[in-house]
Amino acid sequence: MTSRREALRMIGLATGSMLIGTLAGNRELVAAPKPGFPWMYEKLDPVVAAERAYKGYWEGRCCYGSFEAIVGELADRRGAPYNTFPSDMMRIGVGGGADWTTLCGAIMGPMFAMSLLSKDPMAAVDELFGWYEQTALPDYQPKNPKGLITVTSISRSPLCHVSVSRWCKAAKVKSFSKERTERCAWMTAACTKKAVEILNARLEGTFKASYPLPKHVQECRSCHDNGGVLENARAKMDCGVCHFNLGTSHKKI
Amino acid sequence: MTSRREALRMIGLATGSMLIGTLAGNRELVAAPKPGFPWMYEKLDPVVAAERAYKGYWEGRCCYGSFEAIVGELADRRGAPYNTFPSDMMRIGVGGGADWTTLCGAIMGPMFAMSLLSKDPMAAVDELFGWYEQTALPDYQPKNPKGLITVTSISRSPLCHVSVSRWCKAAKVKSFSKERTERCAWMTAACTKKAVEILNARLEGTFKASYPLPKHVQECRSCHDNGGVLENARAKMDCGVCHFNLGTSHKKI
Repeated sequence: MTSRREALRMIGLATGSMLIGTLAGNRELVAAPKPGFPWMYEKLDPVVAAERAYKGYWEGRCCYGSFEAIVGELADRRGAPYNTFPSDMMRIGVGGGADWTTLCGAIMGPMFAMSLLSKDPMAAVDELFGWYEQTALPDYQPKNPKGLITVTSISRSPLCHVSVSRWCKAAKVKSFSKERTERCAWMTAACTKKAVEILNARLEGTFKASYPLPKHVQECRSCHDNGGVLENARAKMDCGVCHFNLGTSHKKI
Repeated sequence: MTSRREALRMIGLATGSMLIGTLAGNRELVAAPKPGFPWMYEKLDPVVAAERAYKGYWEGRCCYGSFEAIVGELADRRGAPYNTFPSDMMRIGVGGGADWTTLCGAIMGPMFAMSLLSKDPMAAVDELFGWYEQTALPDYQPKNPKGLITVTSISRSPLCHVSVSRWCKAAKVKSFSKERTERCAWMTAACTKKAVEILNARLEGTFKASYPLPKHVQECRSCHDNGGVLENARAKMDCGVCHFNLGTSHKKI
């Protein structure tokens, strides 16, 4: 009896650790979070969240606006613990992190909201970032915008620097213009809407990943990433955005 | 009397808004945070925080380890509100954000801790990121490391992808090796130590920014960034890390 129970226990442990590895798609999170985490998510209206994000952008910019639209909406409905969260701390995510233009604040905010509000958030974040890289954005028009944005662009990158530069080129406007600021407000709304749609789909069990890594990225990764012959880098970002000139020493691809 | 008071009030308002603009070095945060924010910071021991960060890395990796080392240390000392913070949400910052290798998690965690714990965090974050870009790291050895790291590298970038690739090249190890993981644990400790030193200096009024943007970055920005002739980009990152080949159409610099 003991050995059967022990065997079952061992199978349970093995299955559990496999689940952590595969469901999360995550090689890095090594210990389980504390009890009481994540906080419960309940279905939000994507458009309501997008409108709140647009408003929030003008209060604390991209990362704050997109995060607060989700967590603040739950706080207004449910009170604690959501209303104990100091959302003001997300202001620093502005301009890809203190204006260093790394990870776009309009997806950095939702990334943390997804992490706060769902188990195994990695697949949800992958979907949001993949969509962001591959979609002509902004794709949502706020109901009462301060200005009209008619030009969209595909960033091919989750980086603020790349996303802003590409859009400015497409729209033929300057990077510190009123138009670019307005565009980032629209981006904050659009990314929040998408994030809520993903969270809702995950809650309802209808989630299906739609933005696999592009083929050319998979090709780069087959040599340079985990398990590749070279294994000298790690990334999910689109390689060609920075490595646009491989020089003469790289083999033909 | 009324007009004098009104005049003083207007001067006060003008000075206040100027201070927000200049002290923060921040063009983007447009509204004031809520009352009760930021949470009070009190002096921490940088080495104690670094050791806690190293340990935290093995529980939830870079972003969690570096954030929790600071906020968790305050929680252990002071209880609420610090112990109400769901630090587990920072796990998603792993590998530059869900393994997308954008902003290095070991500085993403402290960026948010600085934002949570200090007014006008922008200068503190600039200092941390500037130090990270320009310093041979890791520069702190944990007391009881799982492995020994003897190779350092200068990332020239706040991006996980660049930082990891450069170190792997210098150390001649693979990007998913045990050595690289150990290095990132040391980085988590080193970045937390530096962040606490910056927070302490700001608290004591001895803070002085030591990592201005490199001259060649300033040169790029003089045309491409805010107020430049082209003004077609925004960044504080070192431009040359990605734009390593300017092609033939760019004027000679």
